[in-house]
Amino acid sequence: MDNRPIGVFDSGLGGLTAVKQIMEKFPDESVVYFGDTGRVPYGTRSPETILRYTRDDINFIRGFDVKMIIIACGTASSVSLPTVKYENEGIPITGVVDATVYKAVRKTKNKKIGIIGTTGTIKSHSYDDGIAAYDSAIKIYKRDCPLFVPLVENGHFDTPVARLVIEEYLEDIKAAGVDTLILGCTHYPLLKKAIGEYMGAHVTLIDPCAEVVEYLKKKLGRDMLHGADRDAEQYRYFVSDDPAGFAERGGIFLEREINGQVEKIDIEKY
Amino acid sequence: MDNRPIGVFDSGLGGLTAVKQIMEKFPDESVVYFGDTGRVPYGTRSPETILRYTRDDINFIRGFDVKMIIIACGTASSVSLPTVKYENEGIPITGVVDATVYKAVRKTKNKKIGIIGTTGTIKSHSYDDGIAAYDSAIKIYKRDCPLFVPLVENGHFDTPVARLVIEEYLEDIKAAGVDTLILGCTHYPLLKKAIGEYMGAHVTLIDPCAEVVEYLKKKLGRDMLHGADRDAEQYRYFVSDDPAGFAERGGIFLEREINGQVEKIDIEKY
Repeated sequence: MDNRPIGVFDSGLGGLTAVKQIMEKFPDESVVYFGDTGRVPYGTRSPETILRYTRDDINFIRGFDVKMIIIACGTASSVSLPTVKYENEGIPITGVVDATVYKAVRKTKNKKIGIIGTTGTIKSHSYDDGIAAYDSAIKIYKRDCPLFVPLVENGHFDTPVARLVIEEYLEDIKAAGVDTLILGCTHYPLLKKAIGEYMGAHVTLIDPCAEVVEYLKKKLGRDMLHGADRDAEQYRYFVSDDPAGFAERGGIFLEREINGQVEKIDIEKY
Repeated sequence: MDNRPIGVFDSGLGGLTAVKQIMEKFPDESVVYFGDTGRVPYGTRSPETILRYTRDDINFIRGFDVKMIIIACGTASSVSLPTVKYENEGIPITGVVDATVYKAVRKTKNKKIGIIGTTGTIKSHSYDDGIAAYDSAIKIYKRDCPLFVPLVENGHFDTPVARLVIEEYLEDIKAAGVDTLILGCTHYPLLKKAIGEYMGAHVTLIDPCAEVVEYLKKKLGRDMLHGADRDAEQYRYFVSDDPAGFAERGGIFLEREINGQVEKIDIEKY
């Protein structure tokens, strides 16, 4: 038994898709979530800035005596994970990349994998490097999709605008004939229906937040992940901008109402 | 003669449209520009955060002994101007709202004005309050257009996607029969062609950055604005994230190459 909470953070609201998975798969676990809504998005920033922000986020989350940290943000995972792992040796830190790569290389049959993500994620080569390390014969087709995050954040999931942008971004990846597509950003699973229809039913879409929770189950075992006898509040949320906006829009990602207190913190102090 | 530079700042690159106007209308002036690219966008953040960021920006710009400060950012102008004016009494600070309102109320004939901007700008009521103070008989039709900034930043000026989003956002304003439309965000003038085609030739589109520069000319007179015998570099640019990206993409807004050094600073220290 380890009653300490799991720490999860993201550049904004998207990481709540990981919290949703934890709620469903490990209903006894406590979660401390931080969404850096005052500095979102990370995906368009430079690697130096992304690393600085990731360090702040981890310093904040570590203040809660968490038993592990999940970096739900594809950009922060891709750019900063090796550095922050090295800097925080005492605590397990898991990004979304490893688990996603693990699943993708097992799913592909024709050895053609597509990767979509923010500009920061795509430029980092994190997913390609991971895939190449498993099997260098796998061909990779990738593209950054900078309009997907604003589309999702403005409720464009399956609209004519969303479908037009999906076609613009995915045309070449579809033409290449991939059978597996990594949705390398927490926001993209909300476009899953429209992306799936465009790509076709034969293409497997991989959601990193779902994979990272699966991976934890395998890697850490059931015991460590069952925290009974909790005293504290089970779900705590922190943000770096307006808590009301988070409570209002977070439900889209959590697929239920935000069930816990949302507090604003000054992340630049961490 | 006052040889001190004019300070201009914006949440990102859009404020370069004001610098462009200064270059064209006051070719002898020096400019210090700050683009808060590490914390862009402002338009979706809470009023408290927008004010805090605006204060940092002004503290940074004041370090250059500027003779005046132009807040090119529609959101920062709308949310923070009264407060920062009060806090910085010694130096003239001009936002984009006053000059834009001045022009709009003189342009409208049917007394129906449309206002579009970021969510922060629209929620602030800055333009409507200004218009109502001039003439309370003017009817206002407004809408936030949160996808316009990402569209412009990704090169969608006159594409099918841009036109579809323009229709979504402007449908009601067009139906209301406005004859004047305020493009209340530095990015929107880059959509001018497509917006103009959708609204029709009888609708006057007003670009706040152009108006603020016109307004300076009238308000401050020619003498103060002619700074001859400059020693220093004429155009200096500062950003809070990757200078290379700024130099690369800034030309879209400046409508010429970035002609000066771009330096990165840590805005959170100001």
